[in-house]
Amino acid sequence: MADLPDKSSAFVDWYLAAVEAADLTDKRYPVKGMNVWTPYGLAARRLLDRVLVTEIEATGSVAVEFPLLIPETEFAKEAEHIKGFDREVFWVTRGGASPLDVPLALRPTSETAMYPIFALWVRSHRDLPLNVYQIVNVFRYDTKTTRPFVRVREIHFFEEHTCQADIAASDARVQSNLAAFRKMAEAFGLPYLAIRRPEWDKFPGAFYSIAFDAPVGGALTLQLGTVHAYRENFSRPYGIRFEAADGSQQYAQQTTFGLSERLLGAIVAVHGDEKGAALPTSVAPHEVVVVPITAAGAGATPLTVARAYADRLRAAGRRVLVDERDDRPGAKYFYWEARGVPLRLDVGRREAESGTATAVDRLGRRTTVTAAALEAEVAAALAEYDRALRGRADRAFAERFALARTLEELKDSATVRVLSWCGREECGHAIETAIGGGLLGTPEGPLPMELGPPGPCVASGETENVRWAVAARPI
Amino acid sequence: MADLPDKSSAFVDWYLAAVEAADLTDKRYPVKGMNVWTPYGLAARRLLDRVLVTEIEATGSVAVEFPLLIPETEFAKEAEHIKGFDREVFWVTRGGASPLDVPLALRPTSETAMYPIFALWVRSHRDLPLNVYQIVNVFRYDTKTTRPFVRVREIHFFEEHTCQADIAASDARVQSNLAAFRKMAEAFGLPYLAIRRPEWDKFPGAFYSIAFDAPVGGALTLQLGTVHAYRENFSRPYGIRFEAADGSQQYAQQTTFGLSERLLGAIVAVHGDEKGAALPTSVAPHEVVVVPITAAGAGATPLTVARAYADRLRAAGRRVLVDERDDRPGAKYFYWEARGVPLRLDVGRREAESGTATAVDRLGRRTTVTAAALEAEVAAALAEYDRALRGRADRAFAERFALARTLEELKDSATVRVLSWCGREECGHAIETAIGGGLLGTPEGPLPMELGPPGPCVASGETENVRWAVAARPI
Repeated sequence: MADLPDKSSAFVDWYLAAVEAADLTDKRYPVKGMNVWTPYGLAARRLLDRVLVTEIEATGSVAVEFPLLIPETEFAKEAEHIKGFDREVFWVTRGGASPLDVPLALRPTSETAMYPIFALWVRSHRDLPLNVYQIVNVFRYDTKTTRPFVRVREIHFFEEHTCQADIAASDARVQSNLAAFRKMAEAFGLPYLAIRRPEWDKFPGAFYSIAFDAPVGGALTLQLGTVHAYRENFSRPYGIRFEAADGSQQYAQQTTFGLSERLLGAIVAVHGDEKGAALPTSVAPHEVVVVPITAAGAGATPLTVARAYADRLRAAGRRVLVDERDDRPGAKYFYWEARGVPLRLDVGRREAESGTATAVDRLGRRTTVTAAALEAEVAAALAEYDRALRGRADRAFAERFALARTLEELKDSATVRVLSWCGREECGHAIETAIGGGLLGTPEGPLPMELGPPGPCVASGETENVRWAVAARPI
Repeated sequence: MADLPDKSSAFVDWYLAAVEAADLTDKRYPVKGMNVWTPYGLAARRLLDRVLVTEIEATGSVAVEFPLLIPETEFAKEAEHIKGFDREVFWVTRGGASPLDVPLALRPTSETAMYPIFALWVRSHRDLPLNVYQIVNVFRYDTKTTRPFVRVREIHFFEEHTCQADIAASDARVQSNLAAFRKMAEAFGLPYLAIRRPEWDKFPGAFYSIAFDAPVGGALTLQLGTVHAYRENFSRPYGIRFEAADGSQQYAQQTTFGLSERLLGAIVAVHGDEKGAALPTSVAPHEVVVVPITAAGAGATPLTVARAYADRLRAAGRRVLVDERDDRPGAKYFYWEARGVPLRLDVGRREAESGTATAVDRLGRRTTVTAAALEAEVAAALAEYDRALRGRADRAFAERFALARTLEELKDSATVRVLSWCGREECGHAIETAIGGGLLGTPEGPLPMELGPPGPCVASGETENVRWAVAARPI
C-alpha cells in the first residue's frame, strides 16, 4: 500500500486517501457527490445508526418515515426556509413522458414533508409532546467540491422533529437532544464543542441553532450536527395547533435535531492516522480480526486455533473475522490497519501451542491474551483501546484551539481561534473575512483552555457585552 | 369502531379499511401513492426487514447501498429494460434553478445503478460469486389506482443482485433464493405458489422470471416477490466481465431477487379478518399487550401486577406494551385486535390475586397463564397462535383454487383458476382475456389440489406439450 499524505500538513488530501484506503465508500458512481456504500462502509454505518437509534429512543422518540418527494406548494410555505434551500433542491418535473402539474422536491430536509401531517396528528395538548425521528437519505444540489461523507449530494440523514406545548418544554427538548448527543459522541470517542450559531448562520427558519463542531486539523472544523428551536416559525404557516388544557388554541413549539453520515467522516478525520482509519469499537464491522500465521507446510494448527477463538468470541457477541486469505501476514496487517479494525489477534505456531494469541490493537499496543480467559481479555483490550483512542483525540482537540487577540492573528491561522466578540453582526463578518471562514458562534459550555473574562472585541475594540466566540474554517 | 366491509364479498374495500384500522400507514400525504409510515407501521416494517436480512445474509449475501439517482445515459443501456420502465420513471431535470445536463431517473429498480459499478468490482473469477442486496425505496410513476403497500409510487424495496461464473451457478442461486423465500414466508405464515412467468410477462431484461403469488380472495392474487435469471442480458451492455480460471474473458451470469412492502400488505390481506389485521408474531410491534382491568376506586393492584408481568416478559426478550390508557377494557380489546396484536393478557383483580392472567390470542382463543411459568406459557401461547394463524391461512389457500376446463369457466371466476395450457402465447392471451387478468404461468411445485396429467389446452384444445398453469386477476 502506498503511504498516505501527511495528516497535519495536508489534511484534506490525507482524509481523501484515508477514506479510500478504508474501503468505506466507492466514489466511482457516475453522479457527482453520490457515492456507493460498500459492504464495509454500510456495515459501519448500520452500527453508527444503531447508536443514534438507541440514544434517541431512550429519550422517548419514535421512528416514522415520510415520503421523499415534497410538492413545491408545501415546500414554499415558510419563507426563510425556502430562501435557504431553493438553490440546493433537486426537482422532479416529469413522470414517464408527462410533465408533472406540480414539481416535486427531493427532500433536502423534511420539515415541509412532515408538518402538513403534524397539523393532522396534533389536535390536543394530550397529543403532545410529539417526538418523532426518521433516518432517510436527503438530497442537496451542493455546487461546492464534494467530499465523501462530509459534503455529498445524497446524504444519509438522521432528523428528529418535535412539537412541544410551550417554550419551556421546547427548550427542555433542546437540552435533552444536547444530552443525547453527548452520549452518541461518547460512543464514537469524538470530542466536540456545542456552539450557538450567530443570527446570520442559523438554520433557515430557526429561532436559534446550536451546532456540534469538531476541530479536525489546522483551522478546519467539521459540523457534526445541529439542534434547532423553531418556536412557532413553522407551526404557524403549517397550522400545527392544539387545544390547550384551558381550552385555548395554541401553536406548537417545535424543535429539530439533525445528524448525518458526517459522523462517519468525523470518525475517520479525528481518529485516523498515518496508517489510515481507526474505528472505535462501537462502529467497527469487525471488532476483532484473527490472523492465523502458518508457515508453508507447517500444518493447520494455527488456523484451527484461530477459528476456535473466533467461534468463542462470536458466541460472546463479538463481531469477528478470521482472515484466511492466502497472503503474507504483513500485507494483512496493513490491510486491516487501513480499515481501522480495533484489535488483531495473531495466532502462529507458538501461540497455538501455548494456548495464547498475540493481541495488537489499532494503536499498535501489543499484549498476550490467553485461551483460558479469551473473552474477558479481549473485552478488556477493546475497552482499553477505546479509552486510548479517545485519549489521543482529546489531546489533539485541546491543541487545536488558540486565542486570537487581533484580526491580524486570524489570518492564515493554523488553529481554530477563540476570540472576544461584541455580538455585532458587522464585527462577526470582519472576523469571518479575516480567518477566511466562519464565526461559529458562542460555545454553550467551557472551552478546552484556560480563559479569563473576554477582553475587547477583536474587530471593534468594544468592551461592552463581549463574550468568547469561536472562529474556524469549514472543511 | 365501525364494522369493516365483508372480506369475502368486498375484498378490496375490506383491505383498505383493515389497513386504515390497523394504523400502519397514513394516506393523507399530499402526493398520490406516497404514504407516511406511522410509528406502528414502521415498527412492523423493521421487523419484517429483519426477517429478510437474516435469511438473505444466511445465504452469504452482503448489504450495500447504491445512489437513488441514475443518469439517463446509464438507464438506457439495456433496451428491454428501458422499454419496460420508461413510462414509469420519475425524472429529476433541475438542480436549484439550473436544468441538469443529463436527466436523472429516480431508481424504479437498481440494475442500471449497480451494474456500471459491478463492471469495476468484477474482474476475476476470484471476485465471484458477487452476492449483494440493498433495502431502499424505489419509485414508480404508476398511473393505476394506488393502494397502501400493494400499489404505491414510493416503494420500500428489497433487491438482491448477483453475478455468477456460469449458468449452473446462476440457476443454483435462483434455487437458493427460492429456498430463502420459503423461510421468509414461513416466518410470516404466508402460503404462496412459486410460478414461472410466461415469456411475455417476464421482468424487462430477464431470461426467465419466477414469481411468488398469494391468492387473497376471489380470483385475486398478490405478487409477493420475484426471482430472475438474467444470464448475460445485462452483463453484456454493462461490460461485467471476468477472467476465468483458464484465462478466457467471460460475461457474468446474473440473477436478482426482489421483495417489497407488499409483504406487509399480504400479511394484512391473508391473515386479516372481520376484526382487522392479524399479525404473525414475527412482525408484531407488540407481541403482547397487557391490559390491567381496575374497577374505579379498586386500587392499583392489577396495574402493579400487569407492569410486573410486562417487565418479566421484556426481560425474556418479548415486545410488550402495558395499555394504561384511561379507557374501557372493551374499547382497548377492539383497538388492539384491529392492530393485529397476537396476544392480550388481561389482568383484573381476580387474576392479580391468584397470580394469573387471562390470555386471549388474536384468534379469540382464551387460556389462563400463571405467574409461576409466565415466560414459558406466553411463549407457548404465541407459538400456538402462529401455528393456528398459519393453519387458517392454509385452509383458505386450498379453497382459493379451482379447475377450469373451458375459457367460459374463467369468466367472472370466483377463484384463482388452474387450467391446461399448450404454452402458446396466443392461447395465453385468450386465457387472460377470458379471466380479465393474467396467466401467471406454470407452477414450480405442486398445486394445492389433486391433479392428474393436464388435459387439452383450454384455449386451443391442443393436447401436445400441455402443462398445468394458473390464471388470476391481480389485486
